[in-house]
Amino acid sequence: MVTTELIRGVGIGRGTAVGPVLRMPDPVPDPADARRDGSAEDEQARATEALAATSAQLRARGQAAGGTAAEVLDALAMMADDPALAADVTHRIDDGATAEYAIHAAMASFRDMLASMGGYLGERAGDLDDVARRAIAHLMGLPEPGVPRSDTPFILVARDLAPADTATLDLDSVLALVTTDGGPTSHTAILAREKGITAVVGATGAAELVDGDQVLVDAENGTVERDPDQERVDLALQRTAALSAIRAASTGPGRLADGHAVPLLANIGSIDSAREAAARGAEGVGLFRTEVLFLGAEKAPSIDEQADTYRAVFAEFPDQKVVVRVLDAGADKPLAFLTDQGEENPALGRRGLRALQAHEQVLRDQLTALAKAAAASDAHVQVMAPMVSTPEEAEYFRALAHELGVPTAGVMVEVPSAAILADHLVPHADFVSIGTNDLTQYVFAADRLLGTVAHLQDPWHPAVLRLIETVGRAGAENGVPVGICGEAAADPSLAIVLVGLGATTLSMSSTSIADVRAELSQVTLDDARRLAALAASAPSAEAARRAVADARS
Amino acid sequence: MVTTELIRGVGIGRGTAVGPVLRMPDPVPDPADARRDGSAEDEQARATEALAATSAQLRARGQAAGGTAAEVLDALAMMADDPALAADVTHRIDDGATAEYAIHAAMASFRDMLASMGGYLGERAGDLDDVARRAIAHLMGLPEPGVPRSDTPFILVARDLAPADTATLDLDSVLALVTTDGGPTSHTAILAREKGITAVVGATGAAELVDGDQVLVDAENGTVERDPDQERVDLALQRTAALSAIRAASTGPGRLADGHAVPLLANIGSIDSAREAAARGAEGVGLFRTEVLFLGAEKAPSIDEQADTYRAVFAEFPDQKVVVRVLDAGADKPLAFLTDQGEENPALGRRGLRALQAHEQVLRDQLTALAKAAAASDAHVQVMAPMVSTPEEAEYFRALAHELGVPTAGVMVEVPSAAILADHLVPHADFVSIGTNDLTQYVFAADRLLGTVAHLQDPWHPAVLRLIETVGRAGAENGVPVGICGEAAADPSLAIVLVGLGATTLSMSSTSIADVRAELSQVTLDDARRLAALAASAPSAEAARRAVADARS
Repeated sequence: MVTTELIRGVGIGRGTAVGPVLRMPDPVPDPADARRDGSAEDEQARATEALAATSAQLRARGQAAGGTAAEVLDALAMMADDPALAADVTHRIDDGATAEYAIHAAMASFRDMLASMGGYLGERAGDLDDVARRAIAHLMGLPEPGVPRSDTPFILVARDLAPADTATLDLDSVLALVTTDGGPTSHTAILAREKGITAVVGATGAAELVDGDQVLVDAENGTVERDPDQERVDLALQRTAALSAIRAASTGPGRLADGHAVPLLANIGSIDSAREAAARGAEGVGLFRTEVLFLGAEKAPSIDEQADTYRAVFAEFPDQKVVVRVLDAGADKPLAFLTDQGEENPALGRRGLRALQAHEQVLRDQLTALAKAAAASDAHVQVMAPMVSTPEEAEYFRALAHELGVPTAGVMVEVPSAAILADHLVPHADFVSIGTNDLTQYVFAADRLLGTVAHLQDPWHPAVLRLIETVGRAGAENGVPVGICGEAAADPSLAIVLVGLGATTLSMSSTSIADVRAELSQVTLDDARRLAALAASAPSAEAARRAVADARS
Repeated sequence: MVTTELIRGVGIGRGTAVGPVLRMPDPVPDPADARRDGSAEDEQARATEALAATSAQLRARGQAAGGTAAEVLDALAMMADDPALAADVTHRIDDGATAEYAIHAAMASFRDMLASMGGYLGERAGDLDDVARRAIAHLMGLPEPGVPRSDTPFILVARDLAPADTATLDLDSVLALVTTDGGPTSHTAILAREKGITAVVGATGAAELVDGDQVLVDAENGTVERDPDQERVDLALQRTAALSAIRAASTGPGRLADGHAVPLLANIGSIDSAREAAARGAEGVGLFRTEVLFLGAEKAPSIDEQADTYRAVFAEFPDQKVVVRVLDAGADKPLAFLTDQGEENPALGRRGLRALQAHEQVLRDQLTALAKAAAASDAHVQVMAPMVSTPEEAEYFRALAHELGVPTAGVMVEVPSAAILADHLVPHADFVSIGTNDLTQYVFAADRLLGTVAHLQDPWHPAVLRLIETVGRAGAENGVPVGICGEAAADPSLAIVLVGLGATTLSMSSTSIADVRAELSQVTLDDARRLAALAASAPSAEAARRAVADARS
């Protein structure tokens, strides 16, 4: 009997996929600041050739891709061709640097300059790193960085995907994603949920897979199997087909088997995603991220400009709820006009409502614009504040929103203190919405975008579930609705637990709504509460998952 | 009747002081990257003069100070004189920079180079910023940065003190410290507690005080009063005298009025602080920070070197408890051989036990060295792990410590998840010790070294107290001791609350032991529990403080 190898991780969604592995190259290492051995002329020739090759490669890629991607890649190629950059590289090589280090240091210095300019140019600073890595990989004889390409569909295996990788990923040829480092709130997991791609993340054992390995990826069980036998492949594919059938049959508003309503809302950040959400049957919007409208802006848009944009989004949801989050700037979403430079730990810095309190006019203008757009719309518009830490902050925000004409104002619960003190905080909010991504990050003091601590990032962990339970109880006692708008709500099995802990609405990527709707329809509120109690009393995330799976099987 | 102005903040300790204000100059702003208006020659002359003046000023300071300070200041002067730096400044001015920006950019480039070298040189990188700021202040006509000097004693008013400021502060002439920005866990507060200096931190209103204002600083009430009348000054000084009398009369082990023992232990980081703790009557050590021994090291010292150092510390505490924290590297205490470079949020990164698990040999060597030193000592040595997040990590650490010959192994509770899941975690530890500084930082998602969020950093906050209560309960139910080793334990009034929440020992700067001992002797365990319940059910830190003060008055 042949034993097949089973690699374990955290599955995203419930799909399965079979196909050959294609690995993403490991990151290009930063070159050491060593003195060159050869002559300046030889080193200069190497540097010139590498930059030219990088430029040519990027232009070729752009031509093949066409459209917006071509523009992005051409812009990168122009950076590789930049004469000021070439002069700086020459200067550094004359001073004794290797070609690798000269390119690295010159790009870094240009990048810092761009970054300090802020706004659109600041946003482009990261692109220089990308160009530098390509040139350095060329010099070191390493594979070209970035997402691999293939004409035949494949299963992409990577450490974790960066936002830049996901932008250039050609989804048509990707059967599934497998990462070794990322957790359930990594960029890879978010992408997989948004696009409905089968994925298993944080699968450490996948580091051993090599290009061409045939694997079965099973997101529901969180496993990756090398050389699976046909019987297992057939079983998995049948399960996926059955699931698709259930999903297709499930329509209408979210409700449990006993008829208890759980409105299923969408997370959106643009007019496009608003349209997609409406098309996929979302019952409204649980999280409208407004930062996206401001990215790259030197200053906040005017009240009228904002109101126009909000109105266009609201128009997609007549007679439905739209919960707007005011600007959540800071941490991984800096905005030039709100975010302090040079914080050692931006995720623990002056972000979210803290930044808005320090720049109250920006908040006042946004609330005024929202009130104006809401008045001209049929949507039921509500606002909420991000990164609220204390009852006083909740009180402040609600009073200001009411003053400026938005009658329903709530707060996000994503800082542990807000959850722990929910009994004092909830009375100061018209509703609360739990952001499970940041809440999990802070509960474990583990950066949710950092691969080395991704294993601590799991919303199934009872330490997180207990805080959600505390908020759920305070909501019920005060008659205040409790939404969930983190990635946790998109996990069908966890969605049941969240309802059992007291969530009254769930908001997610609209692609996940059908799966969650189908799963919720299988249990009663009593079932959900019983499963939630099991999960919250478990000693670990794994034990919580298993306890729920066992109780349901 | 004249109304006097009362400025409110958070008092550190219980002292009072009266005297004239001397303000610390505001930070020197980063110069803009603007093109110079004048000729390169003129600008060059300005830069040369500024660097020479800075060097001369630093040398004069060094001569006046003498001793180690002279060496430090001479080293800084040599940086200002550095010819390679001068050449880089010239080059940048030739390229069009102003003298201010050329010095700023040249220093920054040298600093980055130093920082990348790590080790001792890396540690010195910050000094270059100091030199740059002095030269730029000179060019801009701003007051000399850093701590002001005066021959007559004064009350220092600052935004917040940086570690570099506290190193050059001449404490003999400082009557009290007042900050506008720092919280109770800021560097200023820590310094005040360590040195027993009267302080009020986070006193926003103190921004309006000017040099020469006569003020009364009252740490017990957390107030600063401008132009106080003589009667109030006399009252305050009488209170301080009475307090000193109580403190002087209180000796022996820590115990409540009903005889309930609360051992009072010291936080130490070196052999010097060990001796001071022993001299001040500490009943042992509750937190021995071992990072200090490794700072600047390229690799961990050998087992024998470590064992020698540990033995010298243990020798100060015959027949007493010494709790050793294994290396807590990362965040604000990076160690070259343990800490990952380039984390976006080091405080949420691979620090503490996470880094040690990734470099297990370092942990094994340290535990082996500790077991060896403990075997040759009369002290009761225990070890604990920092940044434990889950029951599994606690289990891992205890098993390893036991395997390597340290029979008593506990964990620090400073990550919210560890506190929330205390019922599952405590059974895997021989004892736990709550680190209130980091716990508060993570509960509020507010960097404890960042001034703009310092108002959120308060261990009196019921969100923190409730987690401590959760841990205290789990400790009592499992018969596991619960220590406290953050700054909170040094606040005499809060110390009572902590005991009421279930703390069985308190560890602090040894200078605070007398105050805490005196205060604990005034209440019974029932009193402490009643006061703790009041504080934990309050809606805010201020309300918790007031509830306890009112109930005791």
